[in-house]
Amino acid sequence: MSKEGTVKKTGKTVTFLLYLCSLVSSSLTPFLHVQTCLGAKKPFTEVIKANIGDAHAMGQKPITFFRQVLALCSYPALLEDSKFPEDAKQRARRILEACGGHSIGAYSASQGIECIRQDVARYIEKRDGGIPSNPDNIYLSTGASDAIVTILKLLVCGEGRDRTGVMISIPQYPLYSAALADLGAVQINYYLDEDNCWSLNITELRRALSAAREHCNPRVLCIINPGNPTGQVQSRQCIEDVIRFAKEEHLFLMADEVYQDNVYAEGCQFHSFKKVLFEMGPEYSNTVEMASFHSTSKCYMGECGFRGGYMEVINLDPEVKAQLIKLVSVRLCPPVPGQALLDLVVNPPQPDEPSYATFMKERTAVLSALAEKARLTEQIFNTVPGITCNPVQGAMYTFPRITLPQKAIDKAKELGLVPDMFYCMRLLDEEGICLVPGSGFGQREGTYHFRMTILPPTEKLKVVLQKIREFQLHFTQEFS
Amino acid sequence: MSKEGTVKKTGKTVTFLLYLCSLVSSSLTPFLHVQTCLGAKKPFTEVIKANIGDAHAMGQKPITFFRQVLALCSYPALLEDSKFPEDAKQRARRILEACGGHSIGAYSASQGIECIRQDVARYIEKRDGGIPSNPDNIYLSTGASDAIVTILKLLVCGEGRDRTGVMISIPQYPLYSAALADLGAVQINYYLDEDNCWSLNITELRRALSAAREHCNPRVLCIINPGNPTGQVQSRQCIEDVIRFAKEEHLFLMADEVYQDNVYAEGCQFHSFKKVLFEMGPEYSNTVEMASFHSTSKCYMGECGFRGGYMEVINLDPEVKAQLIKLVSVRLCPPVPGQALLDLVVNPPQPDEPSYATFMKERTAVLSALAEKARLTEQIFNTVPGITCNPVQGAMYTFPRITLPQKAIDKAKELGLVPDMFYCMRLLDEEGICLVPGSGFGQREGTYHFRMTILPPTEKLKVVLQKIREFQLHFTQEFS
Repeated sequence: MSKEGTVKKTGKTVTFLLYLCSLVSSSLTPFLHVQTCLGAKKPFTEVIKANIGDAHAMGQKPITFFRQVLALCSYPALLEDSKFPEDAKQRARRILEACGGHSIGAYSASQGIECIRQDVARYIEKRDGGIPSNPDNIYLSTGASDAIVTILKLLVCGEGRDRTGVMISIPQYPLYSAALADLGAVQINYYLDEDNCWSLNITELRRALSAAREHCNPRVLCIINPGNPTGQVQSRQCIEDVIRFAKEEHLFLMADEVYQDNVYAEGCQFHSFKKVLFEMGPEYSNTVEMASFHSTSKCYMGECGFRGGYMEVINLDPEVKAQLIKLVSVRLCPPVPGQALLDLVVNPPQPDEPSYATFMKERTAVLSALAEKARLTEQIFNTVPGITCNPVQGAMYTFPRITLPQKAIDKAKELGLVPDMFYCMRLLDEEGICLVPGSGFGQREGTYHFRMTILPPTEKLKVVLQKIREFQLHFTQEFS
Repeated sequence: MSKEGTVKKTGKTVTFLLYLCSLVSSSLTPFLHVQTCLGAKKPFTEVIKANIGDAHAMGQKPITFFRQVLALCSYPALLEDSKFPEDAKQRARRILEACGGHSIGAYSASQGIECIRQDVARYIEKRDGGIPSNPDNIYLSTGASDAIVTILKLLVCGEGRDRTGVMISIPQYPLYSAALADLGAVQINYYLDEDNCWSLNITELRRALSAAREHCNPRVLCIINPGNPTGQVQSRQCIEDVIRFAKEEHLFLMADEVYQDNVYAEGCQFHSFKKVLFEMGPEYSNTVEMASFHSTSKCYMGECGFRGGYMEVINLDPEVKAQLIKLVSVRLCPPVPGQALLDLVVNPPQPDEPSYATFMKERTAVLSALAEKARLTEQIFNTVPGITCNPVQGAMYTFPRITLPQKAIDKAKELGLVPDMFYCMRLLDEEGICLVPGSGFGQREGTYHFRMTILPPTEKLKVVLQKIREFQLHFTQEFS
């Protein structure tokens, strides 16, 4: 009974997009692994998962201070233990005092614990050079994806030609396409400019918007900066242009800024949309509607499992805000351990506190290693015939373009696979390296890519890059 | 721009239901509190929140063993600390070994960590007297509400007369009505029998179903056992009848069993739908489609803030299961600390382990106190003229009926309030006690109720009951 109905319902548009989404979630790997292991003996001893932005799974160690505070919050008897530094205890006491019954096992307010929202607002103010942030505009969430889906749910409506259109970059992070298909919104693709370091081009935005106006009602513009899967960091000028465009076209801006600490390239800098918006003056800062998203899963902490995150909304109409509060109330509250962790991310040890030195050492080590790996990745890939790789300016991925011989494309078609999926399956099978085919993110017709994280430890990453190099040469030869 | 669209979209059906939903979430209390505090000086010193099933917020202490393991998982350096018992360390090591990079900061598989799903299956098998449970049928979730919404999303489809109808009890837990409105499903009300201890009556199910067949396609039957907000525990006979009915009418059964340890009344016992289904023989156990839900938020642990939970699906078609996997992949994974906590709930200390005695002592203390408070609540309420209270057989709420004088009903209407909302607002204003009006859960036309948790500590609960008693007398007098 349910089978037919369900398949009928989700079968149409959602299935394919959700399939793509599953490509970037951790579910895929065991599946591929099993496929791999079912075959003959393989010429590798380990599958290296470079398919998902999961820092701890790749061996990155948690930040000591964060985990100390979380242990203290989980088991407050440890507050009497002299082994824990005073600043960790002070943070834990403050968080516990803000919890019902002083326990992280109590529900919080659906919008999140108030003092944590205050800390988030202070963090944003500091980040943005003093531009005010109101804790009432902060909504804590179950990772950034939860908040992104919630906002889309709030904004998407209409039927037929009135259906809400949402502009997303291609390549994109598949959460967006999956959520849009699920909500029945129209996905409006704008293409990033691969030849210009995956930059965003306002002419292309205009083209995409005006084409979409023929068949839907475009209302939302999504930006990922720094970019996933493309690793570009937007210039201040580009952000200004985007904001001007959003204002002119009455678009709601969704700024996915979860990689805000992940900027590596010289001359690049993270500019928050909020800051640029306010620096453009009241004509913009009082009118453009916006939501910005952040998470505990990326940056230097990589705490994906805790599902912590927040969004800040700007210029949201009070009536819409009331609907938003109701929407978030249905799920009761975001996980409180994730809220506690977020509090530490936005309020880390300060220079006069005992944990500062260790914290800074750990944070810097992670970010420097990522910068080094970003450089290495671009450098090595660009020595491989048939691979072209833009600089990894930020985030934690590279999205190189691969040239596939026509015979390989034909072979893939014969097997019923998209060509870059065929490439990635072969790579997994022959070298034990798990990447995600570019088709999972979208790419210009006739081009092929893959996404690889730069998260493996440096020595392992070098091995991965070397193996991909050899595979590419060998694959090209085989199909030439 | 977004304002109009959003309000237009959600304004129709969702708004009211979401409003009701917010009544049971913690968001409401501050709102009421503020309302209260804005007025004149109040004749009470503290607002007692008996509106939400939030055990820790009401002073219940966490289970020591659970929090020790969570602290160890959060900060594994503590595994070297001799203060922690060996069984706690062993559990923490096992959980960490199952995590990517041995960190609870890594993503898990979207369906949940495999060894935890195995532990859940073993727990179900033990609970159900050996009836097999397959870990592949277990899906870990962000609290039970997440799993409930996911399954509804999978099952609801169609337009017009083909729209999926979902049968829910009245009174109901407002998550259901909110989710149905959000998904565009038809809510089919069946009324619980207040005169018979809020029992479920098959004749009433038939009536509701056949009336609904006129205008939609009924496909799902939701049961909450033990009941929220009504506190009844279903008999084995009743469960058999429900299963027979579901089979005959080709309904998907959703069994919300989050209060499975909360059974207090003599002669009452928790029977899982799964167990009864399998005991009815293969004719039923091979055909009836079902999902059962559990959570870390209720029972003796009351760990709401961790948002842990699971569902077990039975007889789900493999194609539908594939869709389910895709659906849960979009949000990446349930919070890993909540998964770890769930593992402890389903795999608590065993008699030969060092933490067993303390664990059992703590568990028993919570459950005995709840049983005592359940008894006390019924007893005291039934001495109050104008209040009629069924036995609180299970769960953690009472849903007594209140007789309101016609003048009070008129006054409420004059103020634009439903009568039991007026009653609850006055109670809050005069006595500082926060309850939820029965209209938030649904009730038979012309009857009035409120929901109160039995969670306040016994001495405080006595005060609450005494104050409600006085208020009821005084309120009745005022409006007579």
